[in-house]
Amino acid sequence: MEKQVKNITVAGAGPVGALLSVMLAKQGYKVDLFESRVDSRKASIYQGKSINLALSDRGWLALQAVGLDESIREHAIPMYCRVMHDLQGNLTKQPYGKENQAIWSVSRSGINEQLISLAEAEPLIDVHFEHHLTQLDFDSASSVFSTKDKETKHHQSDLLFGADGAFSKVRRLAQELTKERISYSLEYMPQSYIELTIAANKDGSHKLEKNALHIWPRKAFMLIALPNTDGSFTCTLFLNHEGELSFESLNSREKVTGFFEDNFADALPLLDNPVDDFMQKSASPLCLVHIYPWVVNNKVGLIGDAAHAMVPFYGQGMNCGFEDCRILNELIDEHAHNWDHILAAYQAERKPNGDAIIELAKRNFVEMSDLSGDSDFLLRKKIESEFNRMYPQLWVPLYSMVTFSPHLPYSSALAIGEIQKEIMDEIMQLDNIHQEWQAPHVYQLLHKLVLEKLEK
Amino acid sequence: MEKQVKNITVAGAGPVGALLSVMLAKQGYKVDLFESRVDSRKASIYQGKSINLALSDRGWLALQAVGLDESIREHAIPMYCRVMHDLQGNLTKQPYGKENQAIWSVSRSGINEQLISLAEAEPLIDVHFEHHLTQLDFDSASSVFSTKDKETKHHQSDLLFGADGAFSKVRRLAQELTKERISYSLEYMPQSYIELTIAANKDGSHKLEKNALHIWPRKAFMLIALPNTDGSFTCTLFLNHEGELSFESLNSREKVTGFFEDNFADALPLLDNPVDDFMQKSASPLCLVHIYPWVVNNKVGLIGDAAHAMVPFYGQGMNCGFEDCRILNELIDEHAHNWDHILAAYQAERKPNGDAIIELAKRNFVEMSDLSGDSDFLLRKKIESEFNRMYPQLWVPLYSMVTFSPHLPYSSALAIGEIQKEIMDEIMQLDNIHQEWQAPHVYQLLHKLVLEKLEK
Repeated sequence: MEKQVKNITVAGAGPVGALLSVMLAKQGYKVDLFESRVDSRKASIYQGKSINLALSDRGWLALQAVGLDESIREHAIPMYCRVMHDLQGNLTKQPYGKENQAIWSVSRSGINEQLISLAEAEPLIDVHFEHHLTQLDFDSASSVFSTKDKETKHHQSDLLFGADGAFSKVRRLAQELTKERISYSLEYMPQSYIELTIAANKDGSHKLEKNALHIWPRKAFMLIALPNTDGSFTCTLFLNHEGELSFESLNSREKVTGFFEDNFADALPLLDNPVDDFMQKSASPLCLVHIYPWVVNNKVGLIGDAAHAMVPFYGQGMNCGFEDCRILNELIDEHAHNWDHILAAYQAERKPNGDAIIELAKRNFVEMSDLSGDSDFLLRKKIESEFNRMYPQLWVPLYSMVTFSPHLPYSSALAIGEIQKEIMDEIMQLDNIHQEWQAPHVYQLLHKLVLEKLEK
Repeated sequence: MEKQVKNITVAGAGPVGALLSVMLAKQGYKVDLFESRVDSRKASIYQGKSINLALSDRGWLALQAVGLDESIREHAIPMYCRVMHDLQGNLTKQPYGKENQAIWSVSRSGINEQLISLAEAEPLIDVHFEHHLTQLDFDSASSVFSTKDKETKHHQSDLLFGADGAFSKVRRLAQELTKERISYSLEYMPQSYIELTIAANKDGSHKLEKNALHIWPRKAFMLIALPNTDGSFTCTLFLNHEGELSFESLNSREKVTGFFEDNFADALPLLDNPVDDFMQKSASPLCLVHIYPWVVNNKVGLIGDAAHAMVPFYGQGMNCGFEDCRILNELIDEHAHNWDHILAAYQAERKPNGDAIIELAKRNFVEMSDLSGDSDFLLRKKIESEFNRMYPQLWVPLYSMVTFSPHLPYSSALAIGEIQKEIMDEIMQLDNIHQEWQAPHVYQLLHKLVLEKLEK
């Protein structure tokens, strides 16, 4: 029996909640967007609490679907390559894709504020800040919020989306209050992180190459830096939470200073008081969250990090959340606003892709922190890139499938990537591959293996 | 700094909590054993809520360590083989191990009651029924219980073990109350289960072969039956929770009757009102639980299902919990009652083995419900068994490693089993293997592959 859906509640006004609200409003729904925190446009709340974001093609495609891409792009910086900094300060550049392909550095707070302003401009959207979700009825989608003045507000709608992030309250209430068979996992990574800063030069220019993502890969840990429009870089140090060399073990100014001198000698003079920051900030954890189902009673759905929290090593967290919105938006048209069908199709299509990008992101820590300084790894990339140049239809590198092929599902990228790895393992076994990697027989074998294993 | 441990609390008086208490008391500790339910010796509480248990060598070894094996064995029935019932009622026997190797059918309530009585007989143990754990301080191991009269009891001890099962309250409090980075997963299997009964004949004899575990393998679902000492069988029907053929879809007496007639024609006349039971009982879920760490602040530890809940398809849930107890008991001696060391070693040794048996048990559903009726599978078993007869040192079948090799860690059994599978995959590719499986060249190749892959 088709239900009449008119009013939709979105819990969580992060980038995903805001974009989802805009899409739903443009589809004709009355949307109430609730956020527990204060309006970040009035009080800075993100400092030290988030990782700079890399927006890439999946994110752009979703923004484009509702005409928001151009205004966001005005505040974004294209990064065309990784720049690896080794222990001696030598730099190695590695393009992310083909010429002109880039991932885009945006500030978490900046894009969020822009999207909230765009949502507020929609006549069908009401935004409510400082409203804490306290109760949720999963049969009726009615909800209760507590305001900053401790008022209790009852809210009724026809559907509710939890876009409330990795530690989603909507998800927790579903686990506590419903009799659904909810499978769930929360996995802590061994690494935690803190944010550090490289300030702009006095003339407002960047102290490192602007249009690049900088990486100091040190195997068990790493530092990265993403450019901001004001000339600064937001840096993130990923390091084991506990153990021999860790946030826990580096417990004195002397040890921390030595750690930076030994490992990030070229970055140390550029960073703003990294030792103070290290000593004062408490490291944030990195978690993976899996949950199933994403939809309860066809009344409540999860979207974005609430449905699939991942680690930041593929730069896909927000892109994946935006893609959830784009697909949902397409399904609204496809199923002519029949929400039972829309929600079932949304879950069936997105769950395997959420799982796939969680897995890809987890694996990518090793690639970023370890392999990117490894000569075998760099040679693999060169051979792949050369083969891709020769046969662009036959071989798209995994990174490009994830980042620059927004119509290819993450789950397909993962599956194809695994076969590519098998093939490249075989290629790397060839005699003298480091000397002869440009020889024709390498690419003949590659071509043969691709036809055998990938094109069947 | 070594702490003086004298008093230990055990939360949960299931088989694992009771055995653990006995071991700790025999090591000289004062033990308080708390249980939220009523004393099952006074009121039957298990009906329809548990699966009959198969005690095997790991369980026996643990019981033996504190001299409890003989009294338990008096009420246990050895099962020397699987008996598979096909759709036409034809029977196939498959021995579980060598002659005289058996797994032992025990009733969940029977073994639990025996162990509680044995615990009560220890002067250092106090057992407290109908005490609900409500609070737990993870820094001091002090706890608060609510009694059936709604009294609040504060209890202090030096250590606390959560032996409170798959839905452990101790574990939930650790997740809620501590700042530990606790990774956790709860996974529902697609199948749920209900218990059914085959009553004894009027003369008290069994209606099916007594010394066997009976299986009706039907791929997506199955029925099993384990003998009881009173001549009855406890049967368990495993079936998808929802979907085409499921507890949900079989929603009328007609459909359920048809389901039994179509699939369990030979069992139907033996079962006591299976259609009534099916219609009245609500199916119980099957879950896997992973958690890490198992030890918080060296004050609180998890053991048994609280640390590693698994599905029943390898008959190892209780055996694994008993093995946790045995290993802990050995570590008390090894580390001379230094509990910081004992708990660290316990967690390091048992966590990988918990993970391994959870995985093995999950995979075994396919083996029990599907493969055990498959001719390729049966041939594999025959070849393995023959090779094991020729070279008992070189090849112990996976089932025997898990069930009859109590000194081999589960994690080693899993790893060796995977290599054995690779080897057998290669053997099964041989031409005419179904005709020539007894030919010498088969065993020569097997021998060569084992030396290459397993004995390195």
